[in-house]
Amino acid sequence: MKVSKEQAARHREALIEAGSTLLKERGFDGASVADISEKAGLTQGAFYRHFASKDALAAEACRHACAENYSISLEMLGNPDSDMAAFIENYLSPEHLDAVAEGCPMAAYANEIRRQDKDIQAAFVSGFEQYAELLQRTMPESLDPKILKSRSQLIVAAMVGNLVIARALKATDPILSQEILQTAREELVALATS
Amino acid sequence: MKVSKEQAARHREALIEAGSTLLKERGFDGASVADISEKAGLTQGAFYRHFASKDALAAEACRHACAENYSISLEMLGNPDSDMAAFIENYLSPEHLDAVAEGCPMAAYANEIRRQDKDIQAAFVSGFEQYAELLQRTMPESLDPKILKSRSQLIVAAMVGNLVIARALKATDPILSQEILQTAREELVALATS
Repeated sequence: MKVSKEQAARHREALIEAGSTLLKERGFDGASVADISEKAGLTQGAFYRHFASKDALAAEACRHACAENYSISLEMLGNPDSDMAAFIENYLSPEHLDAVAEGCPMAAYANEIRRQDKDIQAAFVSGFEQYAELLQRTMPESLDPKILKSRSQLIVAAMVGNLVIARALKATDPILSQEILQTAREELVALATS
Repeated sequence: MKVSKEQAARHREALIEAGSTLLKERGFDGASVADISEKAGLTQGAFYRHFASKDALAAEACRHACAENYSISLEMLGNPDSDMAAFIENYLSPEHLDAVAEGCPMAAYANEIRRQDKDIQAAFVSGFEQYAELLQRTMPESLDPKILKSRSQLIVAAMVGNLVIARALKATDPILSQEILQTAREELVALATS
């Protein structure tokens, strides 16, 4: 069956979006080409017309998920009522705790990245750096720029760690899970403004 | 073939140790019953004489890995020359960056825990709580006990997040990876003593 250029582009986009969601929900080993193709409403044959391998799709999906995460946060920071505290509080919110598939790719699969191929790793690294730069731009300018950069990276990694731990504890101890988010909101906002 | 009680106990222990290492290296989806049995020097038949399923072994392996991680840190803290700063610095060391299989299970697979069955989740939660309590016992006693508890949990989650991110970046950007560890050592030691 011939597909038009526009259809082909739509199919490619659908595969990337399906991959973005499923990799976050199920991890790199848990999401198969069959699962991703089915979620995109396409066959595995169609998948391989667009991507040479699952890894090739995964690199695009990781890039897409990082860009989406960045856009959502950027939009929030563009709101005049919003600020750095809101940025951190939103990341560590009860809503983000539950929204794995719609949420931050770093919290969804950071610990799997070291096992992935180098294109996936590169997409992840650039996503992390851009996200930390976004936080950095909202922090007090009175700090030394070098400290500002390293502190923003520390805070992003700490936000990721606290969200990941809160998600891991959620089913067993939902109260502790919420307490961890709350403490992290307070302490990391304080660290970002000190 | 009949095996003695002592042999059976040794086989069980070997399977738990093999599982503990392989789950950290490859993740819950990446380590199969075949891999774990082979690493333990046993057949899959022997595996199923000890464990009803991979999940049953994984819960024991997670408990074992958390206990081992705790013991190593406890031993270090038992050293009179050692203290809370050394504890955090050791966790965020270049050695721990490389030692995935011998290192902390939380950093190896925290983001996979929300997808696991409840016995695995319970083993992980109790491992996290014990580890945070260990840190708490070395922190300044002048702090309010409730703050001490929540801050020690925050610091453990932040240590995990920073180590995970440093490992994810290591192949692509080894310098940034080391910088992240260094900043985290400085800032988290400061937070633990303030």
